[in-house]
Amino acid sequence: MTDVLDALLGARAYDLEQPRYAGAPTFPAHEPGVLLHLHRRHEHGLGEPRTSASALLVMAEHSGTHLDALCHQAEDLRLFGGVQVDATVQTPYGFTELGVDTIAPVIARGVLLDVPAAVGGELEPGHAVSAAELAAAAEGVELREGDVVLVRTGSGAHWDDRPRYEAGPGVAPDGSHWLAGHRPVAVGADNLAWDVPGIDDPELGTLPGHSVLIVRAGILIIESLNLEGLAADGVREFAFVCLPLKLRGGTGSPIRPIALV
Amino acid sequence: MTDVLDALLGARAYDLEQPRYAGAPTFPAHEPGVLLHLHRRHEHGLGEPRTSASALLVMAEHSGTHLDALCHQAEDLRLFGGVQVDATVQTPYGFTELGVDTIAPVIARGVLLDVPAAVGGELEPGHAVSAAELAAAAEGVELREGDVVLVRTGSGAHWDDRPRYEAGPGVAPDGSHWLAGHRPVAVGADNLAWDVPGIDDPELGTLPGHSVLIVRAGILIIESLNLEGLAADGVREFAFVCLPLKLRGGTGSPIRPIALV
Amino acid sequence: MTDVLDALLGARAYDLEQPRYAGAPTFPAHEPGVLLHLHRRHEHGLGEPRTSASALLVMAEHSGTHLDALCHQAEDLRLFGGVQVDATVQTPYGFTELGVDTIAPVIARGVLLDVPAAVGGELEPGHAVSAAELAAAAEGVELREGDVVLVRTGSGAHWDDRPRYEAGPGVAPDGSHWLAGHRPVAVGADNLAWDVPGIDDPELGTLPGHSVLIVRAGILIIESLNLEGLAADGVREFAFVCLPLKLRGGTGSPIRPIALV
Amino acid sequence: MTDVLDALLGARAYDLEQPRYAGAPTFPAHEPGVLLHLHRRHEHGLGEPRTSASALLVMAEHSGTHLDALCHQAEDLRLFGGVQVDATVQTPYGFTELGVDTIAPVIARGVLLDVPAAVGGELEPGHAVSAAELAAAAEGVELREGDVVLVRTGSGAHWDDRPRYEAGPGVAPDGSHWLAGHRPVAVGADNLAWDVPGIDDPELGTLPGHSVLIVRAGILIIESLNLEGLAADGVREFAFVCLPLKLRGGTGSPIRPIALV
Repeated sequence: MTDVLDALLGARAYDLEQPRYAGAPTFPAHEPGVLLHLHRRHEHGLGEPRTSASALLVMAEHSGTHLDALCHQAEDLRLFGGVQVDATVQTPYGFTELGVDTIAPVIARGVLLDVPAAVGGELEPGHAVSAAELAAAAEGVELREGDVVLVRTGSGAHWDDRPRYEAGPGVAPDGSHWLAGHRPVAVGADNLAWDVPGIDDPELGTLPGHSVLIVRAGILIIESLNLEGLAADGVREFAFVCLPLKLRGGTGSPIRPIALV
Repeated sequence: MTDVLDALLGARAYDLEQPRYAGAPTFPAHEPGVLLHLHRRHEHGLGEPRTSASALLVMAEHSGTHLDALCHQAEDLRLFGGVQVDATVQTPYGFTELGVDTIAPVIARGVLLDVPAAVGGELEPGHAVSAAELAAAAEGVELREGDVVLVRTGSGAHWDDRPRYEAGPGVAPDGSHWLAGHRPVAVGADNLAWDVPGIDDPELGTLPGHSVLIVRAGILIIESLNLEGLAADGVREFAFVCLPLKLRGGTGSPIRPIALV
Repeated sequence: MTDVLDALLGARAYDLEQPRYAGAPTFPAHEPGVLLHLHRRHEHGLGEPRTSASALLVMAEHSGTHLDALCHQAEDLRLFGGVQVDATVQTPYGFTELGVDTIAPVIARGVLLDVPAAVGGELEPGHAVSAAELAAAAEGVELREGDVVLVRTGSGAHWDDRPRYEAGPGVAPDGSHWLAGHRPVAVGADNLAWDVPGIDDPELGTLPGHSVLIVRAGILIIESLNLEGLAADGVREFAFVCLPLKLRGGTGSPIRPIALV
Repeated sequence: MTDVLDALLGARAYDLEQPRYAGAPTFPAHEPGVLLHLHRRHEHGLGEPRTSASALLVMAEHSGTHLDALCHQAEDLRLFGGVQVDATVQTPYGFTELGVDTIAPVIARGVLLDVPAAVGGELEPGHAVSAAELAAAAEGVELREGDVVLVRTGSGAHWDDRPRYEAGPGVAPDGSHWLAGHRPVAVGADNLAWDVPGIDDPELGTLPGHSVLIVRAGILIIESLNLEGLAADGVREFAFVCLPLKLRGGTGSPIRPIALV
């Protein structure tokens, strides 16, 4: 116990979550993003000096910084591991297999692949990060099975500029294949939806990385990370902690991941 | 880096979150707890083999295992630190001061006060855990400033029995005072609302611990923890990690805390 | 114009809607019924004397007094008229065929079948109103094609007693057949779900009247009406007006029907 | 009875409601307008041939075609009739006075003031309809106490062009005063918010017509009507029927009003 406590108390924590508010960047299918409406108020006249205030949340599972559960994606009605989607697996209230509630706390070695740093400049909106670019960004750092590999495209700096953020770069299909080959437990990026916006791959169709990683390899995807702090400090290897909510049957969860060094 | 990563990878993680589902125990003011309704489905006929499924969440900030932000409570329209509640601080879309989005990742030494173990038997519904009982449970373990102190009442084992859970024991006002005196950064319990259900303290009124801890001492409260695993293993000291969502202006956040040993 | 205006201004209107509030009787599948949470408030400090207050609604289409659209029900994946349910008809955001938005304002002759009055006493919870009982209640009043036929079971008086209301009587399968034979444009009742709670008909299964009326005959069903006023005054024939909201793709709509005499 | 039924069955009904769908024109404070997410589906494997489909609605009270209740507006914390707003009147779950649930079915003589027809051309976005223009539009038709007066600006034709619709004309403060002087029970218009978008009247501030009509005169306002059908047919006088939902404590209700001639 002493070891882990001392190590944690002595570590620096990077907060990898973007702020959550109405109107923040959101994939169209995940509108309305997050709504927080305060209905219980501090006010006079409630019968005692102490008062409580609280709000109702209306929120997409995949709003803001979030993690995709394996049930989020299917090919030909099969989830990862060949689980057949039928009415016992997919219900009005979520999935009975591979839901986000089946994911253990994610505690792993984390590696940052800082693509703009590796290629020597900001990535244009729509840029598809290739396997070669990822390999360049991985120069000098080993990728191990079970890691969490985070890809920085630079989009994270544009969170407050919604059109710019939503048009941002993404990972090319060969990039997703290259990463899957290293067998991480999860990958993540600082953009809206991992893949390049609007891509329609001849073989894999839309959101091709989601097929490659989630459905075929059982690798979790984390989206809309803020990786600016890690990049600014040149951190490439870290301890990664991510604690998705156990929403029964959920296809994803909003999260606040941290990197510890 | 290596130290914290090695320590984390070598640690055992206890998951302190109760499962989230419609109909789970919920404080009346926080109905409807959590609703997860799946509207996007895996199905044939969407134009390509790959499909996405996802749900909408309707959720109280204070549903399930959650953390209370400091703006959640006031006395005479003043928040912790004397912040006056007015229309610039309290808005329809949350608070501009002391919101849950202002809370850093909580990484601290954790201490478990296992009250049933200390007093030699299960606590009855409605039982008020006194300062003396907490002191007995703290025997042999030091409480330090900045700790997170978790109080086990045993309610956590009754999560699936909603009436039993909601009638469970709570912390007496003198217990909250005793804890505040040790200056933890946060306290938590395995019951619905920290305080004893229905208590109306002559001096402090309802939810007295919320005044003592949040408003007067600026100590966060965590509710509906699952402390059964820690208790079963006799863990009394641990590293505690809790990552509340940065919901702008929010009065609380659902969380999945972990204890690491 | 003058005729209809004079007639309306001279008519007495019966309000057939039950009041809407959190915790009102709701079919389990339609939880949370209706939630109305006020977030915008009248308060000082908003910069001008005039202020606006408003709320967010979280509501099942089928909460409170409501009308079922034809797309609400299917048999073997076929809607009324043989419309095949596929991904072009049934979408995450509602139906592209037979949605509630395709229903014209319902303005029709209305007939009340007051079953307790006809059988000489209150109906027990679980009672199945038979074709014979409906025929007895229709004694002396003609049923014509295109009518709206409203069946009073007496449950409407128990709206404030949720368990009693939800256990109330319903229309037996032969009653639904008998009504369908008269070719009304819509039927309605003062109970939770038209059919008898928990019925599982050997031929038709659960909610048998929904198959008979909606899927096979294209007759709309209205549920949770308040028919007490009409019954108290002995009104058996009236002008019926019901204005369902044009919720695009919706399977139903909350409504406030009126009867005019 | 026969009179009103015959009159209704012989009348022509104009549907004055705009269609409801996500992304339709919405006043910023009433986002997200309406969301309808289908979670219960017709599908195989549910145990019987008959299946039910249904959706959850997340909806502002003031989305789409809707009626403002008197509690929606205040001046200096007083509602119409001098009702003082305090914690017993204004609660987290709506108002205990002057809520939309206190409004009887609105059945009244209706008058259309077709301003573009009167002034001989389409009104520009931002145009403020003056008392003189309303008087011109009222030429030849009497305004009586208790009427519902509907003002056509022409915006209703632009419902599908959200920016155009939201920038549309409105009623000038002197127009609201002029109308209030005729003591209608309600007024309505085919634009987003009755008043001119962005107006800040030197005396009355923003949404000046809301003070004049609702707070000072107790006159209901109906917004986002579709008056194109009435105008196309030159209908200026009609029977008006509007049936707001009895949402307990609500500040407004979505509605589907009709005009009968």
